[in-house]
Amino acid sequence: MFKRLSILGSTGSIGRQTLEIVKANPDHFECRALAAGRNVDLLAEQIKQFKPGYVSVYSEKEARKLESIIGKNLHCEILTGEEGLKTLASLAEVDIVMIAVVGIAGLIPTLEAIKSKKTVALANKETLVAGGSIVIPEARKNNVKILPVDSEHSAIFQCIQDKQATEVNKIIITASGGPFRTWSKEKIKQATVEQALNHPNWNMGPKVTIDSSTLMNKALEIIEARWLFELDYSRIEVLIHPQSIVHSLVEFIDGSVLAQLGNPSMLVPIQYALSYPKRLESKLVKPLDLASLTNLEFAVADLERFPALKLAYEAGKKDGTYPVTMNAANEVAVNAFIKRKIQFNDILQIVEKCLERHTPVYNPALVDILDADRWARIFTEELLQPAY
Amino acid sequence: MFKRLSILGSTGSIGRQTLEIVKANPDHFECRALAAGRNVDLLAEQIKQFKPGYVSVYSEKEARKLESIIGKNLHCEILTGEEGLKTLASLAEVDIVMIAVVGIAGLIPTLEAIKSKKTVALANKETLVAGGSIVIPEARKNNVKILPVDSEHSAIFQCIQDKQATEVNKIIITASGGPFRTWSKEKIKQATVEQALNHPNWNMGPKVTIDSSTLMNKALEIIEARWLFELDYSRIEVLIHPQSIVHSLVEFIDGSVLAQLGNPSMLVPIQYALSYPKRLESKLVKPLDLASLTNLEFAVADLERFPALKLAYEAGKKDGTYPVTMNAANEVAVNAFIKRKIQFNDILQIVEKCLERHTPVYNPALVDILDADRWARIFTEELLQPAY
Repeated sequence: MFKRLSILGSTGSIGRQTLEIVKANPDHFECRALAAGRNVDLLAEQIKQFKPGYVSVYSEKEARKLESIIGKNLHCEILTGEEGLKTLASLAEVDIVMIAVVGIAGLIPTLEAIKSKKTVALANKETLVAGGSIVIPEARKNNVKILPVDSEHSAIFQCIQDKQATEVNKIIITASGGPFRTWSKEKIKQATVEQALNHPNWNMGPKVTIDSSTLMNKALEIIEARWLFELDYSRIEVLIHPQSIVHSLVEFIDGSVLAQLGNPSMLVPIQYALSYPKRLESKLVKPLDLASLTNLEFAVADLERFPALKLAYEAGKKDGTYPVTMNAANEVAVNAFIKRKIQFNDILQIVEKCLERHTPVYNPALVDILDADRWARIFTEELLQPAY
Repeated sequence: MFKRLSILGSTGSIGRQTLEIVKANPDHFECRALAAGRNVDLLAEQIKQFKPGYVSVYSEKEARKLESIIGKNLHCEILTGEEGLKTLASLAEVDIVMIAVVGIAGLIPTLEAIKSKKTVALANKETLVAGGSIVIPEARKNNVKILPVDSEHSAIFQCIQDKQATEVNKIIITASGGPFRTWSKEKIKQATVEQALNHPNWNMGPKVTIDSSTLMNKALEIIEARWLFELDYSRIEVLIHPQSIVHSLVEFIDGSVLAQLGNPSMLVPIQYALSYPKRLESKLVKPLDLASLTNLEFAVADLERFPALKLAYEAGKKDGTYPVTMNAANEVAVNAFIKRKIQFNDILQIVEKCLERHTPVYNPALVDILDADRWARIFTEELLQPAY
C-alpha cells in the first residue's frame, strides 16, 4: 500500500497528527500537499520536514511571509485562499485528500476532491452538517469514498464495514458528557471559558472543546451521521459514556451490537481513514488495557440540561438549510463566548433564536448553503450587539 | 435467502433454539433433517411440527419407540447411531448442518459435512478442541465455511468479519467468571453440584454450566479459537466480564478494538450462523438497553483459583492429542461430579493427572484422536475408582 496525501489544515490538531502518521509510515504514505491558514511558522517547519510540492495559505500576506522563511531552495509552489484549497484538493498526483480545515471552509474543497475522484478523509464536521445533501450524492455519482475521521463516525464505520444499511437497526453515538456532565442546570449557566475548555478525556482545539461542553459537538455528529450512513434520524441515538472508551456502537436488525473501543486518541481514526480498507500496525497508539479501566457506564443524555441534541434533531428533521444555520450560529456564538462577550448559556439560546428566524431553502444548491451560512453569521453577530 | 437445514442434536438447548429460529423465519429456513439421542418424545413433537424427511436417534431401541409414537403417516426415514449422523450430515438436499450434539460425537459428522461441502454451523466445542488439526485443513481443502455458534466465537467472528488474520493483534474472550467468581479458593473447594449449576447469567445445559463454574468452558474456547481463527495462543486472552454483555473483543494491529455486545441469548449467534453472511431481523431477541445496565467491568482471570485456563494454554501449546485428553478427562470428571462421586476441586485435579500421564500423538489422524479420547476416558474412570 502506498498513498499520496494532500492535507488541508496541516497545522491544526488533526493535521499535525496526520503528519505524525505519515512520518511513522514512510513506506505507506507520502505528503504531496499541505494547506494551512495563518500559522506560517509551523507550516514552514512542516515543509522542511515533508517536502510537499504544493502548499496553500490564507492570503498573499501569509504567502510572502512563508516565502521569506523557507527561501528558494525548497521547490514548493505556494498558493492562497479558496483557489489554493481547490487546487490542493484536486492534484493529479494525490490519492487521498484529508479535509482537516475548520468550519464551512471545508465544503468547497471536499466537493472539488470528490469531482476529481479523490478518496476523501473527512475530519471537518461542517462539510456534511451544512452540505451533506449535495456532498453525498456527488460522492455516489463519482464513486468516491468518504472516510470519516471523527472518532465516533470512524467507530460506526468500522462496525458497519461493508454491510448494507438495511442490516442496521440503529447507531448509538457515545458522548463523554463533557466537563459539565454532572453539573446542575443552574451551575452550567455560570460556567466560565476556562471550565468549558477543561475537557475530561480529549485534548482538542478550543472550538471543538467548547462544543463538547454544550454537547453541540454531538449535535453536529448526529447530522453528520445521518448523511455519512444514510440513516433516518429515528435510527440515530446518543448515549452518555463518561469514560470515552467505547467510541460508538451499531445495533443490527438481528439484535447483535458491535462497538469500537480504544483509548481516546485521534491517531486511530486518522490512520484507519488513510489505510482503509487495510489496517496498519501502529507504534504511536497505546494499546487498550481493559482490565485496568474503571467500569464502563452508559446513560441517557439529559436534554433539559443539554438542549443542543434536541436542536440538532429538530434542525435535522426540518432539513433544508436549517442545519447550515445551526452550525453557523453556533460557530459565531462559541467565538463570542471564548472572547467573553456572552455567557455560556447564551450560546444555545442564540442558536435557537437563529433557527427560529431562519427562512429555509429546501434541496439547497451550493450557493443556497453558502447564503444561509452567511445570513446566520450576520444575524448572530447582530444578536451579539449590545442591544441584545 | 433460503437455506435447508440438518440439525444434529435437535432436542438439546441449541437444537431447540435453532428450531425456534426456523419456526420464526419460514421464508428463509426449512428443516430437512433432525438428529437426537434418547429424547424420543421431544423429537416426535419436533417431527410433527417441522416434518423433516430424515431423522436419526441413538439406537434401534429409540428408533422403534419413535416409530410407535409418530406412526406411519409422517413420511420420515428413521436412522440410528453414528451412521445416522453421518447420513444426516451429508444429505444432498441440505445447505447447512448444525452440529449441536454433545461431546466428541460431533467430530465425525462435522468431517462428513465438510467432505460433502456443506456449510457447518458449529455449536459443539469438542469438534475443534479435539479435532481442530484435521477439521480446519479439511474445511480449507473443501472450501467450506465453519461458522461458530458459541456466543464468544460468534462475537469474534462478527468483529473480524472478512479481515485478514494478519490484521488481528489479539482476541479477547470474555468469561462471566461463573457462580464462584468472587469465592475464595477454600470456599470453591466445598462447592456443591447445586451451587455449580446456578450460573448467574446464562441458562445452559448441565455439562456446560459446570464447565462455566470451573472455567473449563473458557479453557475449551481458547483451544477452539486457536483453530477457528488460526491464531497463535499468545494472541488469545481471557478477561473476566461478570455482566456477560460484551461477548468477546478483537484488538487489531492499529490499536482499534471491536467488540460484540448483546443480552445473554444464544439466539443471536445461532441465527447469525444460519443467516451469514447476511443478517435477518429478529423478533425473538430482546434489544440491548445499554443505559439500563449496571456498569461493565473487566478483570484479569485468577489462574490460582481457576487453573483450567492454565491447563488449556499448556495442553494447547503442547498440541498433538493433549487437548483431546483434557476434554475427555473433563467430561468424565464433570459427569462424576454431577453424580456426586467426586468433589468440585477433584474435577481439574483429575484432568491434570490425565494430562500428566498421557502419551501424545502429534499430527494425529482421526483414529489417533479417537484413541486418545478413549484412553483418557478409561484412565479417568479408573482414577475415579474407590482406590483414588
